[in-house]
Amino acid sequence: MVSTGTAANVLSIAALTPPWGSVLCHSESHLLNDECTAPEFYTSGARFVGIGGADAKMDPAQLQKLVAQKIGDVHSCQPSVISLSQVTEVGSVYSLEEIRAITDVAKVAGLPVHMDGARFANALLALGCTPAEMTWKAGIDILSFGATKNGVMTGEAIVVFKSSFESKGIDSNKVAQELAYRRKRGGHLLSKMRVVSSQMMAYLSNDEWRRNATHANAMMALLQEGLKTVPGVKINTPAQANMLFCTLPLDMMRHLQAEGFGFYTGRWEEGVIRLVTSFQTPKAGVEAFIDSARRFSLLY
Amino acid sequence: MVSTGTAANVLSIAALTPPWGSVLCHSESHLLNDECTAPEFYTSGARFVGIGGADAKMDPAQLQKLVAQKIGDVHSCQPSVISLSQVTEVGSVYSLEEIRAITDVAKVAGLPVHMDGARFANALLALGCTPAEMTWKAGIDILSFGATKNGVMTGEAIVVFKSSFESKGIDSNKVAQELAYRRKRGGHLLSKMRVVSSQMMAYLSNDEWRRNATHANAMMALLQEGLKTVPGVKINTPAQANMLFCTLPLDMMRHLQAEGFGFYTGRWEEGVIRLVTSFQTPKAGVEAFIDSARRFSLLY
Amino acid sequence: MVSTGTAANVLSIAALTPPWGSVLCHSESHLLNDECTAPEFYTSGARFVGIGGADAKMDPAQLQKLVAQKIGDVHSCQPSVISLSQVTEVGSVYSLEEIRAITDVAKVAGLPVHMDGARFANALLALGCTPAEMTWKAGIDILSFGATKNGVMTGEAIVVFKSSFESKGIDSNKVAQELAYRRKRGGHLLSKMRVVSSQMMAYLSNDEWRRNATHANAMMALLQEGLKTVPGVKINTPAQANMLFCTLPLDMMRHLQAEGFGFYTGRWEEGVIRLVTSFQTPKAGVEAFIDSARRFSLLY
Amino acid sequence: MVSTGTAANVLSIAALTPPWGSVLCHSESHLLNDECTAPEFYTSGARFVGIGGADAKMDPAQLQKLVAQKIGDVHSCQPSVISLSQVTEVGSVYSLEEIRAITDVAKVAGLPVHMDGARFANALLALGCTPAEMTWKAGIDILSFGATKNGVMTGEAIVVFKSSFESKGIDSNKVAQELAYRRKRGGHLLSKMRVVSSQMMAYLSNDEWRRNATHANAMMALLQEGLKTVPGVKINTPAQANMLFCTLPLDMMRHLQAEGFGFYTGRWEEGVIRLVTSFQTPKAGVEAFIDSARRFSLLY
Repeated sequence: MVSTGTAANVLSIAALTPPWGSVLCHSESHLLNDECTAPEFYTSGARFVGIGGADAKMDPAQLQKLVAQKIGDVHSCQPSVISLSQVTEVGSVYSLEEIRAITDVAKVAGLPVHMDGARFANALLALGCTPAEMTWKAGIDILSFGATKNGVMTGEAIVVFKSSFESKGIDSNKVAQELAYRRKRGGHLLSKMRVVSSQMMAYLSNDEWRRNATHANAMMALLQEGLKTVPGVKINTPAQANMLFCTLPLDMMRHLQAEGFGFYTGRWEEGVIRLVTSFQTPKAGVEAFIDSARRFSLLY
Repeated sequence: MVSTGTAANVLSIAALTPPWGSVLCHSESHLLNDECTAPEFYTSGARFVGIGGADAKMDPAQLQKLVAQKIGDVHSCQPSVISLSQVTEVGSVYSLEEIRAITDVAKVAGLPVHMDGARFANALLALGCTPAEMTWKAGIDILSFGATKNGVMTGEAIVVFKSSFESKGIDSNKVAQELAYRRKRGGHLLSKMRVVSSQMMAYLSNDEWRRNATHANAMMALLQEGLKTVPGVKINTPAQANMLFCTLPLDMMRHLQAEGFGFYTGRWEEGVIRLVTSFQTPKAGVEAFIDSARRFSLLY
Repeated sequence: MVSTGTAANVLSIAALTPPWGSVLCHSESHLLNDECTAPEFYTSGARFVGIGGADAKMDPAQLQKLVAQKIGDVHSCQPSVISLSQVTEVGSVYSLEEIRAITDVAKVAGLPVHMDGARFANALLALGCTPAEMTWKAGIDILSFGATKNGVMTGEAIVVFKSSFESKGIDSNKVAQELAYRRKRGGHLLSKMRVVSSQMMAYLSNDEWRRNATHANAMMALLQEGLKTVPGVKINTPAQANMLFCTLPLDMMRHLQAEGFGFYTGRWEEGVIRLVTSFQTPKAGVEAFIDSARRFSLLY
Repeated sequence: MVSTGTAANVLSIAALTPPWGSVLCHSESHLLNDECTAPEFYTSGARFVGIGGADAKMDPAQLQKLVAQKIGDVHSCQPSVISLSQVTEVGSVYSLEEIRAITDVAKVAGLPVHMDGARFANALLALGCTPAEMTWKAGIDILSFGATKNGVMTGEAIVVFKSSFESKGIDSNKVAQELAYRRKRGGHLLSKMRVVSSQMMAYLSNDEWRRNATHANAMMALLQEGLKTVPGVKINTPAQANMLFCTLPLDMMRHLQAEGFGFYTGRWEEGVIRLVTSFQTPKAGVEAFIDSARRFSLLY
């Protein structure tokens, strides 16, 4: 257990790469774009290499090329970990086959695979599969299990999959033990960890996690369906879970802000906004947003 | 705001030392003994140097010697930060004069001083002074303000004292800005930080912090007075706040454990136990503990 | 003075970026491709960001975009240093105007500029300007002055340009002093440094450096002119100093190897080879290489 | 091969400790006192712990206590490497039995042992044993083989002892391979490494190393015998190889300096000087030094 998704991700990866390793992830990944230099910090200076691919999913062919390159050449960092995000940073979801395509490359190369599961529950519901199917059965070795975005106040977990690691000759007990020291030296061992951890009992019992993510995904489906019918709105990547990037006319953006709707601007290309639904998103709010956009598009 | 005292301490210090710096602290300090290698991690590999002194308080004379040694010699780490703990790790409290003796050495050497205030409120009540008197007015530049041990679930703060820093020619704005990046790359920026931070409003309003610490200190006074009267119990360092180290006959230790009292053993010399009172410690519990110890001592 | 170009480059850059900084360099730069993770190691985990541009020269427009992006956003590394290689990694040479285009962007952004001068003398002769014109007069703040590739056994220098730094409000004395500590903690302070350093006296006296580089560049000009006349040989980037990348038919490559000519293969696209001339390259050797290639092309 | 003893030592140790490890060495060791923070830098922030013992030799009893303490406790760094210096920093030499006493503790604890052999040849001649007897046969796993202080210009080697490592279940091939990456990322892979390395052929052939060290040790014996007979001179630790610390009356120190003899002062207690003989030390110089000291003592 740790408090932040950042910590869960970088601790997991740091346990698997030497300082001269490279970590292969999508060029739009959170690791490369939104974590300051936490990845380099925790890995004692490993290299994070961006890989292309549509919808923020790594292209297995590009990955294959990189994992086979300059192996044993001391002038180059050495491929050590592959990290994928499920849900991706643009709101798409890897299918089980797409995960497999990545983990198959990893398996041949003998590399461990990390899943950034900040929106794990949302992805799971999108795929309609079991947690096991989306993780170790699909070749994932270590998971950052996100809970904070789905109802927990502060609390994320790292899950180590014994059988996955062992099929690659990696000692999962050693990984787990090292994580305890890494967490402590990162300052992430809370003296009141039991308070934080206890949330997981509530979260994982009685399908709390499922209810929350189901609602979030449903609200996004509603939002996306509505926005599709609004002239001028462009869906950038079809949302498969609870996050959507779309492009609005600048005037529409301003109109929505004037009506009280809040969203980040300026982080992406002009006109691009990110919409995220959660366990708390009210249906009426979604409908109001769509209505407001539609009213604007009719008037102008 | 961060979740852990570890983070508050090491982030503060990391903002003030170059990687080739040395950080001077007591040889019994938490930094040297209980933080794994978090201090080295956050400072990118600075050296932590232990200084002696009675009751876990740094001896100003030893400190003076070290801050003047090998200055400008590239073969040696360079003194960069002084860190003291208030309450100390053995339960004593620096008087204002004792703090001044340390900060005076620092001032002449031009070094910033960090206070590890994990038990800040308890120390304050012990001294009966204001927060300002115990910090910037006494020459402290940066404070790890502890709250977790005094009623907050997860939450500590770093306080940067503008005027102190500036009297040493250090730009306090730069320190504060850097802390924001250091916190993020340490993985300590919570996405729900507002939830954690909001506790401080309750904690600092209506004298909540004072009520809690007053109770904890009072319970310790009661406990210490009681134990003094029990034959065979040795008070190692007189408790001035809410923490006490004492030495018990091994049989008495086992008797207390058998009666259901819990405490760590094995971390210190044989027979040594640490007793800490908190805002929740019931008076009846303290009395029961004393009674149980006394009953044992009378029987054997 | 240090022994290796790696050390000269990474020490220079480390002195100028905080650990959460980004260092902007060409995507084909040595820093990104040939130094394992030394850049991350020495900077305590800064991010190295590759920028595009023809002939391995950074495109000022791309650079401009990156230095202005996400400034003050703690989720992102912050642009801190710009590093260019002169001669570039593909054998081209920045003109003084091209250097200026980079340093102008840097100046507006307030960022220091590092020049990787592994082939400094060769570039200088290619441009026919003075060292001052190619460095501080063109806006360079710090230089890795390469000597090892031009006649010195082991020995490179870091040159700090006082006036350049000061025009940006950076204290050059502080940079220089820090370099002394950084060198020591990197293990690059030789106990017999005087032995290594003494080479510089010979190298910089009596135009030794100029004679060596003049010869190397002349031999490359001869080699390039010759290869241009050989059917089947493709010049990838016109050599402006003493390094050339060209593409040969695979059979020609093997023929040359069979005749005893040595060169790396397999590091780049198939058929690509790197040819470098030095102060020692004999004219007869260059001619023999061209002859051998021509004979092959006539026969097949 | 690397250029500096610093690099040889810290690379060796870094290959054997995790960042949360502790490295146990004598409190007067070079690692703790003369390497700035290179040890912390190369180990990504491990803790270096000083152990006492007469004549700068670690006390096995103290060592035994530390290797068994707080094992598995995440709040504490974990004992990972033991490092001893042969010749020690005060000029004494561990006997084979004394080395064994250290390595026996290491063996039981499962820890690798590093020998800092900056004056390896001098120690070897002092003991009159074979290199094997002083290293792997005595339980040493990895050696920094010093050559720079005994006739080589710049050049030290790291020697990995396969059988020693394997008796502890450590894969020596992995250690050796990692050293190649660690050397590169430390900037210690010289492009002209063959030039540096070639010295070792001359050094190790025809007993060059032995002749040089024999002379150095003989000159020290002469110097020490002479100084013993000079009233007022105190031998601090009997020199067993080629280094001696002694204490002189301040006036004698100044007299010697006035007569042209050079030595460091001010690094140690007042009056303490360090005298080192080398392969180049002329017998006449040693005699002149003794004479000068004696003349002074007779006059005053």
